Amino acid sequence: MYKEDIKVMDCTVRDGGLMNKWQFSDEFVSGVYNACVEAGVDYMEIGYLSSEKAFSRKEVGPWKFCSEKDLKRIVGNNNNSVKLSAMADIGRIDFDDIPLASDSSLEMIRVACYAHQIDKAIKLAHHCMDKGYETTINLMAVSGVSEPDLGEVLIDISKSRVPVFYLVDSFGSMHAESIQYLMKKYKDALTGKEIGIHAHNNMQLAMSNTITALISGATRLDATLLGMGRGAGNCPVEILIAFLKNPKYRLLPLLKAIQEQVLPWTKMIDWGYHVPYLITGALNTHPRNAIAWMESERKDDFVSFMKEMHDYELLE
Amino acid sequence: MYKEDIKVMDCTVRDGGLMNKWQFSDEFVSGVYNACVEAGVDYMEIGYLSSEKAFSRKEVGPWKFCSEKDLKRIVGNNNNSVKLSAMADIGRIDFDDIPLASDSSLEMIRVACYAHQIDKAIKLAHHCMDKGYETTINLMAVSGVSEPDLGEVLIDISKSRVPVFYLVDSFGSMHAESIQYLMKKYKDALTGKEIGIHAHNNMQLAMSNTITALISGATRLDATLLGMGRGAGNCPVEILIAFLKNPKYRLLPLLKAIQEQVLPWTKMIDWGYHVPYLITGALNTHPRNAIAWMESERKDDFVSFMKEMHDYELLE
Repeated sequence: MYKEDIKVMDCTVRDGGLMNKWQFSDEFVSGVYNACVEAGVDYMEIGYLSSEKAFSRKEVGPWKFCSEKDLKRIVGNNNNSVKLSAMADIGRIDFDDIPLASDSSLEMIRVACYAHQIDKAIKLAHHCMDKGYETTINLMAVSGVSEPDLGEVLIDISKSRVPVFYLVDSFGSMHAESIQYLMKKYKDALTGKEIGIHAHNNMQLAMSNTITALISGATRLDATLLGMGRGAGNCPVEILIAFLKNPKYRLLPLLKAIQEQVLPWTKMIDWGYHVPYLITGALNTHPRNAIAWMESERKDDFVSFMKEMHDYELLE
Repeated sequence: MYKEDIKVMDCTVRDGGLMNKWQFSDEFVSGVYNACVEAGVDYMEIGYLSSEKAFSRKEVGPWKFCSEKDLKRIVGNNNNSVKLSAMADIGRIDFDDIPLASDSSLEMIRVACYAHQIDKAIKLAHHCMDKGYETTINLMAVSGVSEPDLGEVLIDISKSRVPVFYLVDSFGSMHAESIQYLMKKYKDALTGKEIGIHAHNNMQLAMSNTITALISGATRLDATLLGMGRGAGNCPVEILIAFLKNPKYRLLPLLKAIQEQVLPWTKMIDWGYHVPYLITGALNTHPRNAIAWMESERKDDFVSFMKEMHDYELLE
């Protein structure tokens, strides 16, 4: 399935950091960066762009902020083909804290928002564009958005200057048919814009949903090393690259980064498919309860977790 | 997606046993059996049907043989809705060693074969039918069978009395489009017969491929608890049941069996998605090299494993 216009983004540090508060060593981040460079991955999302006053550096690692000083330490002048991206959450970054793109190692800022925040998201994205960045808007948790609300979002996006819009399955509850349905809706509403896909693996469908979106016209594909990411994790970038067989990508550097950098983390934190994440995914709800359960001593008591989810009868 | 004629088969003991030589405790097998009964799972494949002279009981556990004495110890008179099945490999069972169905706790015998063994498989399946069993033929490793050879197999099956034929992705190398292609081929060639799907998870597509086959007309769905099975494992039955939302199934008993019986095995053996299995899957080859690698001290050295696969350049 050779498609020339595919752009793969590695989100290991940004999404994986949700599981360890971005407490990655420089060696880890450098390892991922070098793997992206050598593998020909198009973008690396290296963290969140947040105001220093929104979070404490005592609690979260540097990749919650992506300060230029921290970026430079890892990437130097980034004289490489990989483009660096950071994600901005609505309300956690002041416009004035965003440097000009010409003063930053970042080339892209992705704005993540919920449906009710779409106007703020567009305003922030336009601001970033005016400062010289590539920009996307990533509408989170779309599996819980009503059709009328989604219709309004798509009208707003279509009128905006933002060139890329993401289908984000935050709860990992979607499958091929729902992906195809939304991809058609997005494509029809957003002529001339690119669509991206960001999938979670609660029902072991992240890889499949990413391919389905690709076949349905998505050109921006998010993935992470060994699927590292919040809760059930993401589409594993090594599977995606092995599958695509696109001549611009190489698999071996990604395997090297997995074995050297990512495997040690598998001993410390529990991302990836686990039954509590299946339950929140199948219920189409936020994984926060499952994440808390997985951090408790009762992590392996799936029966009790299911019974504690107040709407678990939906699965019985 | 309510389809009344779906039949789910739990293969945990049979396929999972490939990873531990069927050395399951009676408590384990009873736990799986009770879960199948309470969850409404239609069939449970409890092991292989082999002649005692083909393997030594010193090396393999009782579920490599499925003797009536062992079966009775677990299921008693099996006054339950779940039907017991065993798999027979060509050449490892003598016809005379197969009891009459009326003398056995088994109700189904599934014959597994490679394409060149199809005549022997049909002969064995007919023999089982004549002894009173439900029967299927499971053509293994179809992703490596040429179109002319597959065409011959389908003609042979179409002329046989065998009522169910399985699409088996032994190498875990298939995706939605290849599943759809083969499902159409099977359906077109085998009017009046049922088609089943048995998927492996090397590229994290087992669940997705199972759904794709279902949407394409498969009615027999194989799955295992927590995906337990050879190499990268199978479609997890708990995800499948959570997804199907079919009123005849219940999820909670499966979760109970996972936490009580299957989780302890996750500490001892390495089935499920691991990079070496991805590599054999992406190369469309048997997982035996990856399994051996995973049992060695170098299991986490993915780069060396990939380089040792003589045709790994296909992935670079």
